Amino acid sequence: MTGNADLRQIATELPGSLIRRLANANMGRSDVIPLWFGESDLATDPAIAAAAAESLGRGETFYGPNLGLPELRKALAEYQQRIFATQAGFANIAVTSSGLNALLLVLSALVDPGDEVVVPVPAWPNLVAMPKVLSASVREVPITLEAGRFALPLQRLLDACGPRTKVVILNSPGNPTGWRLPPAEMAQLVAELDRRGIWLLADEVYSRILPAGVAPASFVEHFDEDRRIVTVNSFSKSWAMTGWRLGWITAPRRLVEVLERLIEFNTSCAPTFVQRAGIVALGPVGEAFLASQTARLDTARLAALEVLADEERITVPHCDGAFYLFPRIEGMDDSVALAERAIENGVGVAPGAAFGAGGEEHLRLCFARDPAQVREAIQRLVRTVREI
Amino acid sequence: MTGNADLRQIATELPGSLIRRLANANMGRSDVIPLWFGESDLATDPAIAAAAAESLGRGETFYGPNLGLPELRKALAEYQQRIFATQAGFANIAVTSSGLNALLLVLSALVDPGDEVVVPVPAWPNLVAMPKVLSASVREVPITLEAGRFALPLQRLLDACGPRTKVVILNSPGNPTGWRLPPAEMAQLVAELDRRGIWLLADEVYSRILPAGVAPASFVEHFDEDRRIVTVNSFSKSWAMTGWRLGWITAPRRLVEVLERLIEFNTSCAPTFVQRAGIVALGPVGEAFLASQTARLDTARLAALEVLADEERITVPHCDGAFYLFPRIEGMDDSVALAERAIENGVGVAPGAAFGAGGEEHLRLCFARDPAQVREAIQRLVRTVREI
Repeated sequence: MTGNADLRQIATELPGSLIRRLANANMGRSDVIPLWFGESDLATDPAIAAAAAESLGRGETFYGPNLGLPELRKALAEYQQRIFATQAGFANIAVTSSGLNALLLVLSALVDPGDEVVVPVPAWPNLVAMPKVLSASVREVPITLEAGRFALPLQRLLDACGPRTKVVILNSPGNPTGWRLPPAEMAQLVAELDRRGIWLLADEVYSRILPAGVAPASFVEHFDEDRRIVTVNSFSKSWAMTGWRLGWITAPRRLVEVLERLIEFNTSCAPTFVQRAGIVALGPVGEAFLASQTARLDTARLAALEVLADEERITVPHCDGAFYLFPRIEGMDDSVALAERAIENGVGVAPGAAFGAGGEEHLRLCFARDPAQVREAIQRLVRTVREI
Repeated sequence: MTGNADLRQIATELPGSLIRRLANANMGRSDVIPLWFGESDLATDPAIAAAAAESLGRGETFYGPNLGLPELRKALAEYQQRIFATQAGFANIAVTSSGLNALLLVLSALVDPGDEVVVPVPAWPNLVAMPKVLSASVREVPITLEAGRFALPLQRLLDACGPRTKVVILNSPGNPTGWRLPPAEMAQLVAELDRRGIWLLADEVYSRILPAGVAPASFVEHFDEDRRIVTVNSFSKSWAMTGWRLGWITAPRRLVEVLERLIEFNTSCAPTFVQRAGIVALGPVGEAFLASQTARLDTARLAALEVLADEERITVPHCDGAFYLFPRIEGMDDSVALAERAIENGVGVAPGAAFGAGGEEHLRLCFARDPAQVREAIQRLVRTVREI
């Protein structure tokens, strides 16, 4: 056997996750406070988990519909109508085996080999990798730091779209930057892209992860059957359900019809007992969890910011949403080396290089943890920065 | 909006499932005995389901490793070594979000747009559709009826492979035919394909669904790190776990490394609590279930055969494995119309046309049900055949 010439070249060239590489090698070390993954330290609310256990007890262990349980699709439509003003209803919802899986399915429905997908960076690395899995190309457009805040002027995004652009993926609120598209600009972006025949694929998994007092916004508010607009969401971040692998898509009906078949050929359906838990998360139990999570995240973020402010070589862009800080370390040009050094000091962070161009001088810190632990972790990080 | 020109053409052309189309329109009718899906009427063994509920109770609701829980990968390696003689071990196992998902992942690792995949037909329709999702082409090779038994001579299969063939997908025991590659031919097939640089992708989800007394066989017995051999399996059929969406791949390590990244970009991981149930299924509880399922399937199959023998226009190919009969109805040329008519008589079957060339004159009957119900259902079917 000589090399991997008999594998698909694109597949062999996919980058492994820099985040996972560091984390996997140091998993389970009790002396390391982990801020590296985009995941809360809280287990799912027991009342949500109980719905899955009860479903299993009733023997709900059979195939379900490709698009999801009607009860969950209805609950999702009502949830979105309750939180956002949207025309999207039951027939526009497809349940998926995670938000990630939803993104891949939508891309599978829209992009052919050779098509182009525009992705603002720094970005969650999967957004850049997934189009490549489909033999599409990716055009990156920079989100830049302007006066302490990440920004992506609409014109810059539109200028990045060329004749081969089929889709723009917009992750707002954004991982890792904490950037959020100003809600006032949403309508214009949808209209401009649609006019050019380009689909907007909005990754809104952080739509409910916002500082207290900030009203949630979503592209579903601009949904229209006749527009090229798709949103993807997930139960993972809003309701501490990362391990459940449950997400959903909101799309025009003609796209939902295609997605139904693509789901049949991917995972076929999400487990029914998992979907039962999702229904509970969308109700009062989930809203109560969101309220307490928001308060806890605020406390943790403020604690982190307070400690980071102690070190003048660290500048922290404003966090408009999601549960990350993405500080820039002056004079630091190897984020992987710094992240490795941080582990030795007892804190796990994600190197900025994992998030592509514009990330190299940064580290990503997930503050979805007990605020006292976050404070301690950031103190260890500041100590590490002072060592270099 | 004019048509679907802004969607991916291949995606819009994917056929909807003929099986699901008939079934969905008549789901939940208490007057119809459903033999249309490839699914047992038994819920998962409560001892298996309890492992998931207990995992949820322990708060195992976080991200897991892309390749699956080490405990499950170890259990899968030991299971395969126990049932089959195989060199494949822990490092060769990747856990996936269903057997279907496993097939798509392996194809994503092996085939580029324009590559060719060879699939014997009649086949489970997903085997033909999945390469198309990846912009690959499919070459069908017929499994033919010879003296009452389906057969696929190795030379015919090898002759179907051309210069663009990257993968042969072999589903043995096979859906819908009940065909099984003679175990004595396995080694030769692996060697011949490997010599030509072609991957063998064996879909073995029915490897434990065999008539009593028939020894299970698997291509993992011919596994070798330096050969182009991949097997896919699932918990769905062996342990009545269709709704769990849990499967696994056995592959050379160099392919497992690529799959680890492709899983990250598809569902990321199977839920940990689902995997805990899988571990229990692989142990004594699962073997006991298999023994009782085998006995029950034998009773149901014999009951079905007895009733089908009453009608001379029906000929039933021998069932070497899997839980389907695929009878041919003499003088019947529209299997969809017959399946629709059968619904009116209180039995749900899958039209043979759903399974591609060679299936038109057949119906697929899943006999994984209470034997008395199967007998009654087949009586209704025979009545329907006599009406046409």
